[in-house]
Amino acid sequence: MTAGEGADDRWARAALSRLAEPTDRAVHAVIADHGPVEALRRISSGEGRWERFAERVRRLDVRRDAQIAATVGARLVIPGDDEWPNRLEDLPIPPWCLWVRGPLRLDEATARSVAIVGARSATSYGESQSSELAAGLVMAGWAIVSGAAYGIDGAAHRGALAVDGATVAVLANGVDRVYPAAHAMLLRRIAQTGCIVSEVAPGSAPMGSRFLARNRLIAAMTTGTVVVEAGLRSGSLQTMNRAVELNRPVGAVPGPVTSMMSAGCHNAIRKGEATLVTSAAEVVELVSPIGQGVLAEPREQPLPEDDLDPDTARVHESLPRSGGIDLDALLSATALAPMVVLAALGRLEDGGFAVKKDGRWRKLRRGT
Amino acid sequence: MTAGEGADDRWARAALSRLAEPTDRAVHAVIADHGPVEALRRISSGEGRWERFAERVRRLDVRRDAQIAATVGARLVIPGDDEWPNRLEDLPIPPWCLWVRGPLRLDEATARSVAIVGARSATSYGESQSSELAAGLVMAGWAIVSGAAYGIDGAAHRGALAVDGATVAVLANGVDRVYPAAHAMLLRRIAQTGCIVSEVAPGSAPMGSRFLARNRLIAAMTTGTVVVEAGLRSGSLQTMNRAVELNRPVGAVPGPVTSMMSAGCHNAIRKGEATLVTSAAEVVELVSPIGQGVLAEPREQPLPEDDLDPDTARVHESLPRSGGIDLDALLSATALAPMVVLAALGRLEDGGFAVKKDGRWRKLRRGT
Repeated sequence: MTAGEGADDRWARAALSRLAEPTDRAVHAVIADHGPVEALRRISSGEGRWERFAERVRRLDVRRDAQIAATVGARLVIPGDDEWPNRLEDLPIPPWCLWVRGPLRLDEATARSVAIVGARSATSYGESQSSELAAGLVMAGWAIVSGAAYGIDGAAHRGALAVDGATVAVLANGVDRVYPAAHAMLLRRIAQTGCIVSEVAPGSAPMGSRFLARNRLIAAMTTGTVVVEAGLRSGSLQTMNRAVELNRPVGAVPGPVTSMMSAGCHNAIRKGEATLVTSAAEVVELVSPIGQGVLAEPREQPLPEDDLDPDTARVHESLPRSGGIDLDALLSATALAPMVVLAALGRLEDGGFAVKKDGRWRKLRRGT
Repeated sequence: MTAGEGADDRWARAALSRLAEPTDRAVHAVIADHGPVEALRRISSGEGRWERFAERVRRLDVRRDAQIAATVGARLVIPGDDEWPNRLEDLPIPPWCLWVRGPLRLDEATARSVAIVGARSATSYGESQSSELAAGLVMAGWAIVSGAAYGIDGAAHRGALAVDGATVAVLANGVDRVYPAAHAMLLRRIAQTGCIVSEVAPGSAPMGSRFLARNRLIAAMTTGTVVVEAGLRSGSLQTMNRAVELNRPVGAVPGPVTSMMSAGCHNAIRKGEATLVTSAAEVVELVSPIGQGVLAEPREQPLPEDDLDPDTARVHESLPRSGGIDLDALLSATALAPMVVLAALGRLEDGGFAVKKDGRWRKLRRGT
C-alpha cells in the first residue's frame, strides 16, 4: 500500500494502529491537525521526522490485518461510530481506532461499567473478592471491564460470566492473539458473550509499553475503577492513577495488613487516591451519579436497647430480670433524680422494655 | 461522714467518686461553680435536687475506700497534682479524680501515648496486629493505653509488656477489682510495671454506663487512638468517636472484608472518621506533631528500570540480552526518532543498563 492510496478514514486509522505505537504524541498531533488520511500520507512518506516509521511502512499490509481480523470475527470501530465509547475522548491521546470482537456493542457495554483490576499474583482472598464484586455488580446492572490477565483480572471476568453478565476484556495485543496462553478458554468465552478490545492491530504482540497504554483505555472507557489487590509496584496502580487523572471514581478493597498484595490498596486509600470499598453495594454507591445508588449506613441488627437515651439506659440496666425493684432502691442504684427515673420508667414501659408488678419494676424480655 | 466534715479538696473528690456516677452533669456543674468541698456538702445534704444521692450518702465511707486503695497500693490523683494528665481537661465533664496503681507516673506515661482499642471477640489476626502495633509503638517511644478487656485490649497490653514498654489500663471498675477475671495475671503485671487507672472509687463494680465513661478517659488521656478490630456496634467505636470529638488523631487497621470484626474499622475509614493505618510507623506519623515522625512513601525495593522515562524504557525493552541489535533495527523496533533513540541509548549506557559492542547494542544485567 502506498501513501493515502484508496485510504478513507477507516483504513487510515487501521493502518495507523499498525504503524504507530499507542500514545505516540507526534502521530496524535498530525491526526488531530490534518485527519487520519493526511496523517497516514505524511507518515508513510518516510520523510523528515517520519523517517522512524520507514521500516514499519515498508511492511504495512492493512488488507492482511483486516483479513486476520475477519478470521476471528473482529470489527474496526473508529471515533464517530455509534459503537465508539465517547469516554475515550477524555484521554489526552485517544486510540486511533479499536479492534473489537464479540457480540456486545462496546458503547452500550461500557455505558454503565466498572473496571476491576489488580495483581497478577493475587491471593485466593483477592481472587475471591474480585469474582464476588464482579458478580454483585452484574446483578446491580453493571458491566465488568478488565485486562484478562492472571489473578484479579481473570477472576473479575469469571465472576461476571458466572452470573451471565456483560464483560469486556481490553488487551495489550491483537484481538486475535491469546495472551496469556492459559486464558484461552476464558478469552473464548468472553469473545462469545462479551467483548474483546484492543487498540493495536491484529497480530500485534503484547509489549510492556502496550500494557501501560492498555491500562489507560480500561480507566477511560469505564464509569469507575476498583483495585482489588495490588502490590506497591503493581501495574494495576497505573490503571488507578489514569482513572484518578480522568476524575473517574476509584475504589480499593482493603485486606490483611500482613498481605503485600493489599499494600498498594492500603497505600492508595491512605493517600486519598481511592475510596475504601468492601462490597458491590459500596462500589455501586461510588460509581453512581450523586443521589443514586446511595447506601444505607451499614449496621448489625440493632438491639432495641441501643435506641435508649443514656439516663433511660442506666435505669434499664438497673432493673432485675426477675423479682423486681422498688422506686427507692432504683433511685439509689441509679443516682438519678426521681423525675428522671420516673420519666425513664415511663419510656421503658411504653417501649416494652420494662413492666411494673406489685409496685416493683423488672426488665421485660423483648418479643415476649 | 457528714457533709463537708474535715473534707479538703482531695477527700471531697474521693467521696464524689463514690457518690456520683462519672459524667453526672449536675455534679459537674456544682463542682465547677463551688469547688469539690462545697459540692460534696450540698450533695450530702440530701436536700432538693440532691435527694437522689441520699442512699449513697448514707453508705458513704471515704476512710474505708482509702483503706481499700492503700491495700492495693493505689493513690488518689486530682486536678492540679503533677501526676494529673492535663489532656483530661479537654473533656466536657472531666473525672472528679483518678485512682491510680502502679509505678508509672500517669502524666509522664500518657504524654506520648497511643490508645489501642477494639473488639473483645477479636480474631487471631486482630490480636496479632494489636500486639505488633503496641510493640512497634513502644520501640518508637510511645506508651500504650487500653481497657484491659479481652481481645484487642489485652493483646495491646501484652504486646507492650513483651518489649518492656509502658502500658496503662483504664478500668470501668475500682482499681482493686480484677475484671475480667481471666485477666488477673495481666492486670497484676500492669500494676507492677505500668499503671492501672479508674475514676470510680475502689470496690466499685463495672457497669455499662461506666464502660462508656471509661472509654472517654482512654480517648482523652492519649495522644491518639487506633481501632484494630471492631464490629459495627463495637464499644471501641465509642472510644473512637470520643477521640474524634476531642480532635485527637484516630487510626483504624483494615482487614479482610469478609471479617465482620473489621467492618467497624472499614466503615470508620469510609466515613473519614479514621485514617487507615497498617503499621506502627504509620501510627507514629498519625499521632506525631506535624513535621515529625513523617514516613517515607512505602515501596518495594525499586528495580532500576523503574526510573527510566517512557522512551528510554521502550528502547531498553527492545534490546536483546545477548547478541545485540544495530541502530537501524532498533529504530524500526521502537518507531522512535533517531535523536530520541540515540539519547536513550546514551542514558542506558551511562546508567549501566545497556552496552555497545561491535556496533550492536544489548541489555546489561545490572550489578554485573
